[in-house]
Amino acid sequence: MEIRSFNPPVRTLMGPGPSDVHPRILEAISRPTIGHLDPLFVGMMEEVKKLLQYAFQTDNTLTMPVSAPGSAGMETCFANLVEPGDKVIVCQNGVFGGRMKENVERCGGVAVMVEDEWGTAVDPQKLEDALKANPDSKLVAFVHAETSTGAQSDAKTLVGLAHKYNCLTIVDAVTSLGGTPLKVDVWGIDAIYSGTQKCLSCTPGISPVSFNEHAQEKIRNRKTKVQSWFMDLNLVMGYWGSGAKRSYHHTAPVNALYALHEALLMLREEGLENAWNRHLRNHQALKAGLEAMGLSFIVPEADRLPQLNAVSIPQGVDDALVRGRLLNEYNLEIGAGLGALAGKVWRIGLMGHASRPENILLCVAALEAVLSDLGADIRTGVALSAVQKELGPRS
Amino acid sequence: MEIRSFNPPVRTLMGPGPSDVHPRILEAISRPTIGHLDPLFVGMMEEVKKLLQYAFQTDNTLTMPVSAPGSAGMETCFANLVEPGDKVIVCQNGVFGGRMKENVERCGGVAVMVEDEWGTAVDPQKLEDALKANPDSKLVAFVHAETSTGAQSDAKTLVGLAHKYNCLTIVDAVTSLGGTPLKVDVWGIDAIYSGTQKCLSCTPGISPVSFNEHAQEKIRNRKTKVQSWFMDLNLVMGYWGSGAKRSYHHTAPVNALYALHEALLMLREEGLENAWNRHLRNHQALKAGLEAMGLSFIVPEADRLPQLNAVSIPQGVDDALVRGRLLNEYNLEIGAGLGALAGKVWRIGLMGHASRPENILLCVAALEAVLSDLGADIRTGVALSAVQKELGPRS
Repeated sequence: MEIRSFNPPVRTLMGPGPSDVHPRILEAISRPTIGHLDPLFVGMMEEVKKLLQYAFQTDNTLTMPVSAPGSAGMETCFANLVEPGDKVIVCQNGVFGGRMKENVERCGGVAVMVEDEWGTAVDPQKLEDALKANPDSKLVAFVHAETSTGAQSDAKTLVGLAHKYNCLTIVDAVTSLGGTPLKVDVWGIDAIYSGTQKCLSCTPGISPVSFNEHAQEKIRNRKTKVQSWFMDLNLVMGYWGSGAKRSYHHTAPVNALYALHEALLMLREEGLENAWNRHLRNHQALKAGLEAMGLSFIVPEADRLPQLNAVSIPQGVDDALVRGRLLNEYNLEIGAGLGALAGKVWRIGLMGHASRPENILLCVAALEAVLSDLGADIRTGVALSAVQKELGPRS
Repeated sequence: MEIRSFNPPVRTLMGPGPSDVHPRILEAISRPTIGHLDPLFVGMMEEVKKLLQYAFQTDNTLTMPVSAPGSAGMETCFANLVEPGDKVIVCQNGVFGGRMKENVERCGGVAVMVEDEWGTAVDPQKLEDALKANPDSKLVAFVHAETSTGAQSDAKTLVGLAHKYNCLTIVDAVTSLGGTPLKVDVWGIDAIYSGTQKCLSCTPGISPVSFNEHAQEKIRNRKTKVQSWFMDLNLVMGYWGSGAKRSYHHTAPVNALYALHEALLMLREEGLENAWNRHLRNHQALKAGLEAMGLSFIVPEADRLPQLNAVSIPQGVDDALVRGRLLNEYNLEIGAGLGALAGKVWRIGLMGHASRPENILLCVAALEAVLSDLGADIRTGVALSAVQKELGPRS
């Protein structure tokens, strides 16, 4: 097997993540590696924590990046907060709610499922019914931004309901952080996890998490040890905690954290509200183009995530063929459907650095060209001007 | 808090890891991010697996990088192979054997400890005694290269004993992979994990693992689910397995894997045996210099790891002060002692790209300068020539 250095092509990443990584971040990740206990690195860790507090809009002291992808961030929340026998209400309206159920059960908890149709938001009424029917519940878990469908749930309301029935909350913000309003402290979210490779536009592999005082208290008062050594926050905090004395836990992914530091700095430079507005504006432009072509969104307008656009694949069109042609002919990646939606939808991401007018124009133009070449039943010649109109003057 | 882009200094990394990262690897990690399901990325994943098989000297099909640091690689082995109630013999001769015990217990297993003095190799006789006394044991776990002490154990003999008593083996090769002879198939190791930031000289954050058929069979025949969703090999293999159809599990750390691909390619270019010999040669030169200065190794010569040199701190010398001066005045990082050895030893790494004559000369010269400036009881003026003599002609 002849193996040479791997030189990836330059793709435009408009799938469900990773999103386009800004050159500043790619440059940051290649800076010289220093020791993970080097005082300068420790200083940078403190800055990463501060910047994450800003991104999450929280003062939580326990705010840090888990040294592994989002699914490990998810597991960090469940492994630390769920004790054997704990009843956890899990709201499922897509793939990731199902993964939460797996997490609850593998931690020895009992999952009570609240199911909503894929592509819709979590119904607060159903959650309240479940809370009433299960007064011994300890936790409520839900996905703020369902990456598998593009539906956004009303996190503030769901957290309020959970608290009304004395439950703590675990919120999946993998796709929402940096892309759509998310206010950890104002909404009272107890535990939250995200990923670097979505609206932060950072390289994939790290999972920011945050825990408020209530969550920390539950962790401190556990009757049993956290089943994962790697994810045990009591140990991780000895390393990420403040104070001069840090105890070694694991070797931090030094360069990946350079990248995250730079990505978070860019978010702060832009300003959270500006980033949220940009994601919304660009979504409107993409939507105008796709709808002009005749494609339709699967999520009701009020629940749509601006950064993750799930549209139905036109009848008779071969999903994989279209995605393959976009990739090979235009270096453009869009996402396939996941789980029950596989083969039925495309997921078009406008996340972080990928949420730009240039990308929207490329995507709409390429999709129109490929679909019309395949004889799909779409309107041609109108999408790009619809996008331009929505984008407005570029001066 | 004023936060700017983080520009690390250029350090020479001669601690217990991360080691110096070669510029080729830093360049590779900054290449454009592509999708984790992109056919070109999937092709690269296959190459990473092949290159890891070479590094581990194995044909194991289940050979891949875990998307998290070495301690997650450790946990992947234990979480998949230990079922509740399983008795596991853990040989401890340093910090990491203690972490293995934690892992066994958190997986619901029963750990039987075989203790050896820190700084010595695991005693095969003690292991055999424990195996005889515990005929119901399922697994034997030990550390091949104890990063906390610099002692190397006879993995081949220990694995042979475990098999004689029908136990599978879990081997920690975090510090040995690429630095000292390690032959997974010839020695019959059943499950093994390593790290990227030691003798592979790659950026930290990824953990290569490998499982043979016996280990895979035990995993397939588990009566209980693996307690970690993120680390469940039955799921991870759906993503890393061969074949055209890959199922999404988590988002791979794309850029970190570019780096690992390049690091493994460099190891193959050099050749494993050449790398092992280089580590040994450079160890001899460092040793000549340190001993000429009057410093002494804590590990008996026969058990010494060439890539991790633990020496006693001379009496009356302030550990942290010396390491701080080396870092601030020479941009040189050496390691502190861990656990019971904290404050008593320095750990000087000669790992991967850091295992070079230039580094040895810098380290010996800087250490001599700082120690003599502090009035430590060492011999001066002889160490560098001892190093040069050992290195031989440089032409």
